[in-house]
Amino acid sequence: MKAILASTSTLHDQEYLEYLIPELSKLYEPSSEVVFVPYARPGGISHDDYTKLAASAFEKAGLKIKGLHQFKNAAEAIKNASGIFTGGGNTFLLVSELYRNKVMQALRDAVLNGTPYLGTSAGTNIGGLTMQTTNDMPIIYPPSFKTLGLVPFNINPHYLDPDANSTHKGETRETRIKEFHRLNSQPVVGLREGSWLELSDNKITLKGSLTARIFQAEKVPFEVETESSLTDLN
Amino acid sequence: MKAILASTSTLHDQEYLEYLIPELSKLYEPSSEVVFVPYARPGGISHDDYTKLAASAFEKAGLKIKGLHQFKNAAEAIKNASGIFTGGGNTFLLVSELYRNKVMQALRDAVLNGTPYLGTSAGTNIGGLTMQTTNDMPIIYPPSFKTLGLVPFNINPHYLDPDANSTHKGETRETRIKEFHRLNSQPVVGLREGSWLELSDNKITLKGSLTARIFQAEKVPFEVETESSLTDLN
Repeated sequence: MKAILASTSTLHDQEYLEYLIPELSKLYEPSSEVVFVPYARPGGISHDDYTKLAASAFEKAGLKIKGLHQFKNAAEAIKNASGIFTGGGNTFLLVSELYRNKVMQALRDAVLNGTPYLGTSAGTNIGGLTMQTTNDMPIIYPPSFKTLGLVPFNINPHYLDPDANSTHKGETRETRIKEFHRLNSQPVVGLREGSWLELSDNKITLKGSLTARIFQAEKVPFEVETESSLTDLN
Repeated sequence: MKAILASTSTLHDQEYLEYLIPELSKLYEPSSEVVFVPYARPGGISHDDYTKLAASAFEKAGLKIKGLHQFKNAAEAIKNASGIFTGGGNTFLLVSELYRNKVMQALRDAVLNGTPYLGTSAGTNIGGLTMQTTNDMPIIYPPSFKTLGLVPFNINPHYLDPDANSTHKGETRETRIKEFHRLNSQPVVGLREGSWLELSDNKITLKGSLTARIFQAEKVPFEVETESSLTDLN
């Protein structure tokens, strides 16, 4: 397996995928055409517009992009892809579309068989066992919450620390994940913006400059340093 | 119909339900025993502990509480209740439990037939057409997102304005609701903490001291003043 699961596509004051461009050249074979999964449609933009955005960033790493919606048979396209990138947006929509287009299993098979994979935000969320630690609104009812399971835990992208000065009574991210653990047993990795998980040779490593927060059922959450192995977290 | 749908149970620096105590005396018949729906279990607390919390607040308005989990037949209990209160917590869990215990339809029938109803947070979310504008994590897979439809629109409780100083790239609440409107047509009322909807004589009125934010598909969101009628919003 060869994959990057990034918390976010974009850092503050940067362009789309800017901080990940050096990683793209390492992840994908030189000048390959990467299949882009635009299903999550951030802000509701069209598949075409979203694909153009991804293409303009990938160009900087000498890579081409073709949108999955441009293929006649989506599952075949995934099967034959030399590289795959799933962009962010709404995870409920992404997962619904992956099932509707019968791509979920093909995507899992492809990545497990070694097709290089990049996910950002929702595209990272689906790398976990289930999509149940997404931050997104349930704007559509998916046939299942089960996702790719590239890692033996769940991921919370865009992880946000509680704001000690907030007077808002909505749940903090930590409280939400605690509620998840009342009903579910798998660990959750809170991945801050700028962090990513590198999956390589069956190893999982935290990358980027920040620590990540690990949540396990019935345990006190803790931080792990960048370059830590998360291979045995399950 | 006689109902209060409140954004939050608790305001900053106040006790549980404190700001709503005067409303409770108006909503329910004096000294009635109100059936409490504890299914949403905020932070994963037990049904018993949650019921005790609700009881201690209701006592201040001279009202008794009995937890729905204490009845043998939940649907019958809802049907026979002289008043109902659904507390906050996780909306996915609440909706799952309402369906699992075959209470969703009984609850709808009871409130439409005039049983006084109070909802806070998740208990308010289910007053809308669907639960699809919840802020909660999908910690459990409910059999449907359809909810009570006491009002002809959706509600977003704990509505939060975008933080102009934020460098975080996760979606703002407004962006999330905009994404909802790419796939769904009903209006959404962004209900700030301290606001509630009063349903009385088939009229819907915004209450509390704040404005609310109204989102409609393909339209620019706008604010409505407190005491505004939302009866014709659909």
